[in-house]
Amino acid sequence: MPETVRIRSAVSADVPLILGFIRELAEYEKLAHQVVATEADVRISLFGPRPVAECLIAEFDSKPAGFAIFFHNFSTFLGRAGLYLEDLYVKPELRGKGVGRRLLAHLARLALERGCGRFEWAVLDWNEPAIRFYKSLGANMLDDWRINRVTGEALKKLAAEAGA
Amino acid sequence: MPETVRIRSAVSADVPLILGFIRELAEYEKLAHQVVATEADVRISLFGPRPVAECLIAEFDSKPAGFAIFFHNFSTFLGRAGLYLEDLYVKPELRGKGVGRRLLAHLARLALERGCGRFEWAVLDWNEPAIRFYKSLGANMLDDWRINRVTGEALKKLAAEAGA
Repeated sequence: MPETVRIRSAVSADVPLILGFIRELAEYEKLAHQVVATEADVRISLFGPRPVAECLIAEFDSKPAGFAIFFHNFSTFLGRAGLYLEDLYVKPELRGKGVGRRLLAHLARLALERGCGRFEWAVLDWNEPAIRFYKSLGANMLDDWRINRVTGEALKKLAAEAGA
Repeated sequence: MPETVRIRSAVSADVPLILGFIRELAEYEKLAHQVVATEADVRISLFGPRPVAECLIAEFDSKPAGFAIFFHNFSTFLGRAGLYLEDLYVKPELRGKGVGRRLLAHLARLALERGCGRFEWAVLDWNEPAIRFYKSLGANMLDDWRINRVTGEALKKLAAEAGA
């Protein structure tokens, strides 16, 4: 039986595809109003002179089926880098075929190859199918950590407190 | 009145100081058993040929008072980098003097200077003094996100599922 799932690194010609996936994922998370990224933003961030993230494309029967965007974080306790998965998405009509699992496995292998001590990502606490799936892969959910975020005017106000 | 709090970028001679801060912070978080980082790990991660994080040192009356370790993350929704604070620590005897606030303000200014859309960090949900402090700075706590982590044997097992 031929391999139907294939994982490849994204190239700059994939930018419209990637932005489409980002928007579909945001719709699913009920966060579409938060997407302000343009094709130019995605191009410079992933394929510019100083990329800040990397992208994998999953294909099913040679057609784009989903994607993963990731970057390296750092653990002070381990004293080394980790791999952080920012976004994972598989088109609804292609779920249940192992595409997401193959993306995660590929990222786990990359993490080991690059000497990372951890592979991490965030999940919405109401997304029970995802939580069950991640647990089945051996992931631990860090229940007692919460993310704080400063943005917009609050960020400018805080920055203004910095001395010269 | 002279400026008593000063923020500076860490240099490689600060490595023993930084590792000391990492250990003190872990004690406070009741996570000391998780610290495996060595001076060599910290040196290569912060000051090696491909640094994966950056460090600020805070001084109070010209003595080391605390530190911040940070790196850049990426938001697909914004299509641009963010600034992620991995660790913030101020020595207990020097708390309440505005040292932590100056570190956070310095990082907020760096975030704006570098074109970041967000400044983020994690907090333990039982650390109420910290949570109140962050809220007073304009931070939003993202209550519905949880971090998943794969490490050790589970990471190797997942990686082994990746195709050739």
